[in-house]
Amino acid sequence: MTKRRIALISTGGTIEKTYDELSGVLANHVSVLDVMLASLELRGVEVQRIALMNKDSLEMTADDHTLIAETAAQLAREAAGVIVVHGTDRLAASGERLVELVGTPASPVVFTGAMRPYELRSTDALQNLTEALLAVQLLAPGVYLAMHNQVLQFPGVVKDRRAGTFVKETP
Amino acid sequence: MTKRRIALISTGGTIEKTYDELSGVLANHVSVLDVMLASLELRGVEVQRIALMNKDSLEMTADDHTLIAETAAQLAREAAGVIVVHGTDRLAASGERLVELVGTPASPVVFTGAMRPYELRSTDALQNLTEALLAVQLLAPGVYLAMHNQVLQFPGVVKDRRAGTFVKETP
Amino acid sequence: MTKRRIALISTGGTIEKTYDELSGVLANHVSVLDVMLASLELRGVEVQRIALMNKDSLEMTADDHTLIAETAAQLAREAAGVIVVHGTDRLAASGERLVELVGTPASPVVFTGAMRPYELRSTDALQNLTEALLAVQLLAPGVYLAMHNQVLQFPGVVKDRRAGTFVKETP
Amino acid sequence: MTKRRIALISTGGTIEKTYDELSGVLANHVSVLDVMLASLELRGVEVQRIALMNKDSLEMTADDHTLIAETAAQLAREAAGVIVVHGTDRLAASGERLVELVGTPASPVVFTGAMRPYELRSTDALQNLTEALLAVQLLAPGVYLAMHNQVLQFPGVVKDRRAGTFVKETP
Repeated sequence: MTKRRIALISTGGTIEKTYDELSGVLANHVSVLDVMLASLELRGVEVQRIALMNKDSLEMTADDHTLIAETAAQLAREAAGVIVVHGTDRLAASGERLVELVGTPASPVVFTGAMRPYELRSTDALQNLTEALLAVQLLAPGVYLAMHNQVLQFPGVVKDRRAGTFVKETP
Repeated sequence: MTKRRIALISTGGTIEKTYDELSGVLANHVSVLDVMLASLELRGVEVQRIALMNKDSLEMTADDHTLIAETAAQLAREAAGVIVVHGTDRLAASGERLVELVGTPASPVVFTGAMRPYELRSTDALQNLTEALLAVQLLAPGVYLAMHNQVLQFPGVVKDRRAGTFVKETP
Repeated sequence: MTKRRIALISTGGTIEKTYDELSGVLANHVSVLDVMLASLELRGVEVQRIALMNKDSLEMTADDHTLIAETAAQLAREAAGVIVVHGTDRLAASGERLVELVGTPASPVVFTGAMRPYELRSTDALQNLTEALLAVQLLAPGVYLAMHNQVLQFPGVVKDRRAGTFVKETP
Repeated sequence: MTKRRIALISTGGTIEKTYDELSGVLANHVSVLDVMLASLELRGVEVQRIALMNKDSLEMTADDHTLIAETAAQLAREAAGVIVVHGTDRLAASGERLVELVGTPASPVVFTGAMRPYELRSTDALQNLTEALLAVQLLAPGVYLAMHNQVLQFPGVVKDRRAGTFVKETP
């Protein structure tokens, strides 16, 4: 069986945070996505890594969201699907921007992230990345979030800060 | 959002094996599925656990496969989907039996298992369970295997012992 | 064989920090010492837990150091040994205070801590606690630090912030 | 501070066992000692690795025990201490053989092992190795076992198979 070629765009965020011993805070210095990918058995997809930026999403500008959306739209034309690893605080802004730009991309674009960094024992990072890597193979073209055992379709996906997850906005 | 109610049938197998200190081998004494489920964020499904049997699948009889298939078919009528956790050596036999019995079940039935027990640091158990718990929400009614980042549809799914995974039989 | 009764005084610090999902920083909310102790095979000692305070050591006052030293000195008279789990930034101040107060306590008092919280995959917390729990059985009465595969005796133990460990001051 | 040079003799045993996916049993194929050593902060010792043999200790012959004892005795003359990583079933035989050969070696010789391999989530391997690496710095010349939070001196150390640990023989 031929593996589907999937583009994985990394933009930073909690999922990639590592612990800085000296300052005692979590900062975005090193990408741990490659460590996570190496720990998974990937028989369905072949991953093409695109390290687009490495930002806490709270620091993203409108231009950053547009750049992410444009890059995802372009890669959706070249690959069988696209995954965007994104900080959760501003993830929805990039997702909505992509819908504004192209409506439905040429192949499925799946956003994911994490509430707790991979470096923590009790992280949700591996679960979410696993889900995104499976969902991108099963979904029709569109813009989605895969995280915490659910897939939600843009537009109308928002972070529920109190619940620590994403929900579909009720109109 | 309402969570989908999913039935999870456990039958034993590597995924649930625990280490017996005295004999130094891996044996099927204790279910670790509940530990795994507790470590995941389940926002999409509500899991109903059915501990049907706890067998190394190499010891399963034709009657065992029929019992598993009948139980899955029945639960597929009651729940929004069914997951069957199964030893990999005879997993395909239960999947094929289900197709023989009902053709297409009333809701998706997703088999999964593991090549390396959850108790090992480098297990594939959590990845596979995560994938089954997501796939069951996205797939149309049918009989499937979800494992190692791919979803394969029965009939015609076989274990590739040398590669340590499952593949679709080429006719 | 009778286990030695050891008093374990907890005071807070990095070793016990847990991750706060909402704020994204590491804070001292919950003691994880009991989780760590439960993960070790303790055949040599019976641990008596004394939760004295739960402070980032940078916030400790002179009174805090005196309270820690007095409590350790008192427990050293009652138990076969004392372990003090302490934030590393001000650990040396409590150790020096104990030497000032009593010179040599009635049984060995071993300070320990961690540079990286237990909640992180790559923590030094378990190593250091393991070392303290063994050293307290082997050392003569005195005041010590056990951490990072070494035992140093007070007075004259200082944190080397750049190296991320403790060293013996060269006079 | 100068680190003490410690010789670490590996002989195989549970501590080094890795999981063989195909056969589903635990076998001694790959040394994981280097992975364990890399995960520890070693500020007190500099480790010299001697891979003497890689055997399940149940398969050790009298010659094997003599070879282990002679190698340890020789290295105890050259290094500041010696650690012997050994399968627990026949560990005591090598320890007793060393006492027969030399009585008290030139520097401390500390045996250790594990009841549960490092590859398991709930292993005692790291605890035991950590203890051996600290004990070897604190003990007087002699032959010892360090494991499960205790140090026992040879002769007269025996495995208590039911308790899953070592005890001092009561005469």
